[in-house]
Amino acid sequence: MRYPSIDAERLARDLESLSRIGGRPDGSVTRLAFSDEDRAGRDHVARLVSELGLEPRIDAVGNLFAIRPGADPGAGVVFAGSHTDTVGSGGRFDGALGVLSAVAALRAVTAAGIVTRHPLGIVSFVNEEGVRYMTDMMGSLFVRGDLSIDEARALPGIDGTVLGDEMDRTRMAGPDSLRAVNVRGYVELHIEQGPVLEDSGTDIGIVDAVQGLRWLRCRFSGKSNHAGTTPMDRRHDATLAAARVVVEARRLTTELPGLRATVGQLRVEPGLVNVIAATSQCTLDLRHPDPERLADAERIMRDRIRRIAGDESLDVTVDDLATSPPVTFHPEIVATIERAVARRGLSGHRMISGAGHDAQIMARVWPTAMIFVPSCGGVSHSVDEYTEPGHCVAGAQVLLDTLLDLAEVVD
Amino acid sequence: MRYPSIDAERLARDLESLSRIGGRPDGSVTRLAFSDEDRAGRDHVARLVSELGLEPRIDAVGNLFAIRPGADPGAGVVFAGSHTDTVGSGGRFDGALGVLSAVAALRAVTAAGIVTRHPLGIVSFVNEEGVRYMTDMMGSLFVRGDLSIDEARALPGIDGTVLGDEMDRTRMAGPDSLRAVNVRGYVELHIEQGPVLEDSGTDIGIVDAVQGLRWLRCRFSGKSNHAGTTPMDRRHDATLAAARVVVEARRLTTELPGLRATVGQLRVEPGLVNVIAATSQCTLDLRHPDPERLADAERIMRDRIRRIAGDESLDVTVDDLATSPPVTFHPEIVATIERAVARRGLSGHRMISGAGHDAQIMARVWPTAMIFVPSCGGVSHSVDEYTEPGHCVAGAQVLLDTLLDLAEVVD
Repeated sequence: MRYPSIDAERLARDLESLSRIGGRPDGSVTRLAFSDEDRAGRDHVARLVSELGLEPRIDAVGNLFAIRPGADPGAGVVFAGSHTDTVGSGGRFDGALGVLSAVAALRAVTAAGIVTRHPLGIVSFVNEEGVRYMTDMMGSLFVRGDLSIDEARALPGIDGTVLGDEMDRTRMAGPDSLRAVNVRGYVELHIEQGPVLEDSGTDIGIVDAVQGLRWLRCRFSGKSNHAGTTPMDRRHDATLAAARVVVEARRLTTELPGLRATVGQLRVEPGLVNVIAATSQCTLDLRHPDPERLADAERIMRDRIRRIAGDESLDVTVDDLATSPPVTFHPEIVATIERAVARRGLSGHRMISGAGHDAQIMARVWPTAMIFVPSCGGVSHSVDEYTEPGHCVAGAQVLLDTLLDLAEVVD
Repeated sequence: MRYPSIDAERLARDLESLSRIGGRPDGSVTRLAFSDEDRAGRDHVARLVSELGLEPRIDAVGNLFAIRPGADPGAGVVFAGSHTDTVGSGGRFDGALGVLSAVAALRAVTAAGIVTRHPLGIVSFVNEEGVRYMTDMMGSLFVRGDLSIDEARALPGIDGTVLGDEMDRTRMAGPDSLRAVNVRGYVELHIEQGPVLEDSGTDIGIVDAVQGLRWLRCRFSGKSNHAGTTPMDRRHDATLAAARVVVEARRLTTELPGLRATVGQLRVEPGLVNVIAATSQCTLDLRHPDPERLADAERIMRDRIRRIAGDESLDVTVDDLATSPPVTFHPEIVATIERAVARRGLSGHRMISGAGHDAQIMARVWPTAMIFVPSCGGVSHSVDEYTEPGHCVAGAQVLLDTLLDLAEVVD
């Protein structure tokens, strides 16, 4: 079988053009969901889709999709895509690479005059980042049926806006339905946003799972006392308790292989040099690809937090902030990607996704997997986010090859 | 020798009256330095002094003092006192007890018609707390000659005022000089502000030293990274580093007896649940009565901080915030207090002061020591600050007896 090639220069140019929409003087990009820049970014993609001779379609929350018909009218669509919204001062690859590679793949297939049995599709999910309007992965949650249009419209923004008003103002909503589409599979190319591929000198990450996530917040409540007059054995030191949680969380990662644990937020009150803190609170971000190990990690940390509170004679509460179960991607799609990598003579290895993506949402209803390409320095959500052009093209090529394998070339 | 008795009811009434000045509905007291309430509190004490037939005198920064002449015109004054300014929402005993006990002692001596060889004096230092205008113990620093009137007047307030303006507005300054007075000794009665006396069921603390203090601030600078995608061995986690400082500081207190170590302030940035903190900073409050052990503690903590920064591949800076060397009180004054305690059949033990007091400033130029009475629950700087009336009277009585011993009763 013949696989057409991705146009490397055109892909680079498309990445460059999209990055100018919401581009900032320092080179970073800001296209917060449902902002004018977000709308302009989606319009840009819609124009590229139109240039392929496809009709850009918009659903009720603003997801963009387009379908290139296949030979078999009843066959499910093979989608590729990602998102084009960004965090504040984000990079130019996160999301954009997946959408523009999907465009590049369909452009190459169309130019080569290839006919597939299954239709090929492009999808760009709205509000993946969830920065302006929490929840993240909103567009895919809507398609999956786990978020209603009313729930979406009611989301409050960090800027005092309400999503529905901004959706109306920017005219982001449309009449079409992605929920109604019969789907054969979904492949999302994305930058890794971590250092694993770069460190190991690997071209392609074949993503077979997304690690599960558990967010907890613990609050210790002790007693404010004078740092000079209070003997060490009479203290109820909330700073010490939070600090011990941080140290125990790190220790647990050495005991439970595969666990990632992070305390990103830690506050102590009243926060004075010579006053023993009365209260402290810290978050705990636990991630593991195995649901049982993730549950173990949570149980062990809850035990340790209780023990620490007891040691320091503090009251403690532990709140659930968020849960996201691990996701296993579709074995057939993963295997198809793996074969495409091998056929191109690229280096690749199976890995998990550390971050959240629309693909993990869709995986429950669409056969799904992901392709990762290396992030320089593992950096993302920053002006320093960078993936080498060669890696972008390699990822897009593996995406194209995978799409054709899944869609079955008939001519 | 005959020692007159403190009038317990009058002392309680004086404490009550003074607490109403700046008193708040919840029972706490706010007389921030150079506020109208502070001025009113000082006026109240001046009236009590006048009622004893003594002339209230005010120096250039607002310190109040009064001298009851002795038989020997050339003999140095034996002072007792403390301060009447408070922290915001402070208690009714901190400072006030020392000043009002000095008044009570001279009232009893005068009522008994006792003649001493040395003059007896009352002193109330201005701005001991240093809350509104940092530096604390300002009035005593001025008397000792370590702060000029210009430096004092230039101090900025936390409320946007400048001390000199408020000093003029409240007419707190006066024409007299405490610096010029020949001083035989200074005894300051104060609440312990810690739990040691209460815990051991002791009536009186015979304070023979003030522990030295060293304040450091360390700032760790690492790299902000994604909590999900960054493997544990690739992290430069500023939260973990600060947390380890807290744990190491506590550990050091078990290795160096007598050390008190506190991290009261700890901040991490950017402070997001799923972002490994790029920077953190924490303060370190180290206290020890022995200057060499205090220096050891600082050296060891600096070593550990460097090692922690190395372990986590972080940059670190350690800044000096404050230093206060340990102070040893005058052995003769301490022994005189100790004898007075024993003579009254009270329980007493030698102890250090954990907090700072005017007495530690004056100790370098005046023979000085302190008397502590128990603080319920060790609480201070709070509406819950409380010392039982019996303990207040016992402390005032020991103060009175000590003053007479030092001043030498001649008739």
